[in-house]
Amino acid sequence: MGRTDFTRMRCPVARSMAVLGERWAMLVLREAFYGTTRFDAFEQNLGIAPNILSARLRELTEHGLLERVPLSETRGAGARHEYRLTEKGRDFFPAYLALKAWADRWMTGPEGPPVVLEEAATGRPVQAPPVLSSAGTPLRPEDIRVLPGPGAGQATRARFGGDAEHG
Amino acid sequence: MGRTDFTRMRCPVARSMAVLGERWAMLVLREAFYGTTRFDAFEQNLGIAPNILSARLRELTEHGLLERVPLSETRGAGARHEYRLTEKGRDFFPAYLALKAWADRWMTGPEGPPVVLEEAATGRPVQAPPVLSSAGTPLRPEDIRVLPGPGAGQATRARFGGDAEHG
Repeated sequence: MGRTDFTRMRCPVARSMAVLGERWAMLVLREAFYGTTRFDAFEQNLGIAPNILSARLRELTEHGLLERVPLSETRGAGARHEYRLTEKGRDFFPAYLALKAWADRWMTGPEGPPVVLEEAATGRPVQAPPVLSSAGTPLRPEDIRVLPGPGAGQATRARFGGDAEHG
Repeated sequence: MGRTDFTRMRCPVARSMAVLGERWAMLVLREAFYGTTRFDAFEQNLGIAPNILSARLRELTEHGLLERVPLSETRGAGARHEYRLTEKGRDFFPAYLALKAWADRWMTGPEGPPVVLEEAATGRPVQAPPVLSSAGTPLRPEDIRVLPGPGAGQATRARFGGDAEHG
């Protein structure tokens, strides 16, 4: 059985996993959100092998989350390019914050999270906002109904459409 | 160079990637959020090879996002276990919604997203809330300052602590 091509799946979350479903990809994005732009800085901050870093940067660039920008020789100090977040990459920031919030709650040791984020202008702590129900309580998976969207295929319509029960 | 053990990294986001940094893991969680509990239902809804599904379910269970619950023989209809979201798994739902919102914006074809979510009780569309700055505009990566948290190691303190510039 061959490796499934996630870019050809209908579900956008699945397509996202074609690039974000590699464990280093999220950490490269983390670094980009924290201001890293140069190959050697990514390499040092992540402790990642250069060939793996090259592959992740290439994929994030191919999928349009980063762009590779030539540096002028005078600014470069050795590096010839830097990697900058695109609009698509920057728009992932809220999802990163939501992931970080969960990870800080569930994947942190007793010592607490290694970094905290604050709004630079105000010093206000930055956190992903909770997703609330109409009643003002945290929205749980069992509170939702899944419906076919405009891009639903036949299988999705059969599964979630009409009067079918789902839970 | 051996494969890095992400569970031993200090960053909780990195630790999360030990389980969520495999592309099928997020889709198994998606199914769990949409109500799937049985092995054969995961297999059918995902179109995933059984050995890969077994591995992902085992890892999600080992990391405490799912629990494997024995079914009574009368209820089972063939299946002996079901996989239920734990509190830790359910708490990932806001992060899933934030990922889905981004994917629906950037990874969807012209036909639009295949599924939409609504609050079952009210029919209200369910969406991840935006992360806003104090000024009420979307918070951008360049609006934040990264600071060492209580669990910061020496490298993190040296990088983000004190008067050091970062950007």
